Amino acid sequence: MYPSVIKKIIDNFKDFPGIGDKSAERLTFSLINFDKDKLQSFADAIIEVKEKIGRCRICGSICEGELCSICQNESRNRKNIFVVEKPKDVFLFEKLGIYDGVYHVLGGLISPLDGINPEDIAIDALVDRINKNEAKEIILALKPTIEGETTMQYIKKILEPYEIKVTKIATGIPIGTDMEYIDTMTLEMALEQRKDFT
Amino acid sequence: MYPSVIKKIIDNFKDFPGIGDKSAERLTFSLINFDKDKLQSFADAIIEVKEKIGRCRICGSICEGELCSICQNESRNRKNIFVVEKPKDVFLFEKLGIYDGVYHVLGGLISPLDGINPEDIAIDALVDRINKNEAKEIILALKPTIEGETTMQYIKKILEPYEIKVTKIATGIPIGTDMEYIDTMTLEMALEQRKDFT
Repeated sequence: MYPSVIKKIIDNFKDFPGIGDKSAERLTFSLINFDKDKLQSFADAIIEVKEKIGRCRICGSICEGELCSICQNESRNRKNIFVVEKPKDVFLFEKLGIYDGVYHVLGGLISPLDGINPEDIAIDALVDRINKNEAKEIILALKPTIEGETTMQYIKKILEPYEIKVTKIATGIPIGTDMEYIDTMTLEMALEQRKDFT
Repeated sequence: MYPSVIKKIIDNFKDFPGIGDKSAERLTFSLINFDKDKLQSFADAIIEVKEKIGRCRICGSICEGELCSICQNESRNRKNIFVVEKPKDVFLFEKLGIYDGVYHVLGGLISPLDGINPEDIAIDALVDRINKNEAKEIILALKPTIEGETTMQYIKKILEPYEIKVTKIATGIPIGTDMEYIDTMTLEMALEQRKDFT
């Protein structure tokens, strides 16, 4: 029913995770209203992603070229490696502007039910990095789900032979959230991990 | 902080109505995960929109070429003109498969506060169409907001000199919705426009 050109755009939008039929149609009709210059620049930007964006050879984050700007930056502290699931997490934590170490992107979480085993994510690459330089602390920042916890446990075990500190970011009540919207598991963790109130 | 290529895509997504910073970032990181073929085909589809999609010379809906498939279709009843705000509405009502007339897309609603006056939307074009053929019924299907109602009132007035039936789609309680979520204006309209229950 839609002209074939429109149908193609709708189908493209439907390939984005979290975009269903209605959102894809809404985005498509917004796109159609863009002027020709804007459409050209959007298409060009997508081609640039195709041609220029790759994965950092060291940490696995996204970058233009061989290495990401963090791995290239000599002033970053290579003793601290911050382990995250996906490239976006790197930018999320970088925005805070409080971390001066480097990152390691696993590219997924262990999930046997989905057929994702330790060898399918960049754990070997993490161990390689640790073998090659003298990392002092590995900060695990994976999401607090079964998959995230399993992956963190696995990495902790793998790193046992090393003289290295393994830490994990805190689980608890997000600021500004009413307790009643928080699941019991998080409430339990927040209670268990309580700290002296000074 | 983001590589410039990524920044460009985020900015492009932010130009879509209803897409804020977070959604734009989420869409961008999904896009980065597409393989090269998918990125190319997405960019190609956008260029096709740029080059092929225009507005139907008769009804103002979107189409490839000069006329939309509805205006080209000889079996559609040209006596009935269904007036909508935007091209998307055409497809919305076409999906129902119950209307066999033609459409007219205004391309906006009268909104003096936003500087949109009757001459800024396709009302003249509608009157032209009515002058040129013997339309029997104009079905107004604009949204029940101040702008929509104002526009429908205006069109009704403009069409007074013509021997033509002007109807308006019903305002009321949507199926499956609890009354308590419906605004008082709609409740009032639903009551006023009550029908014999047979």
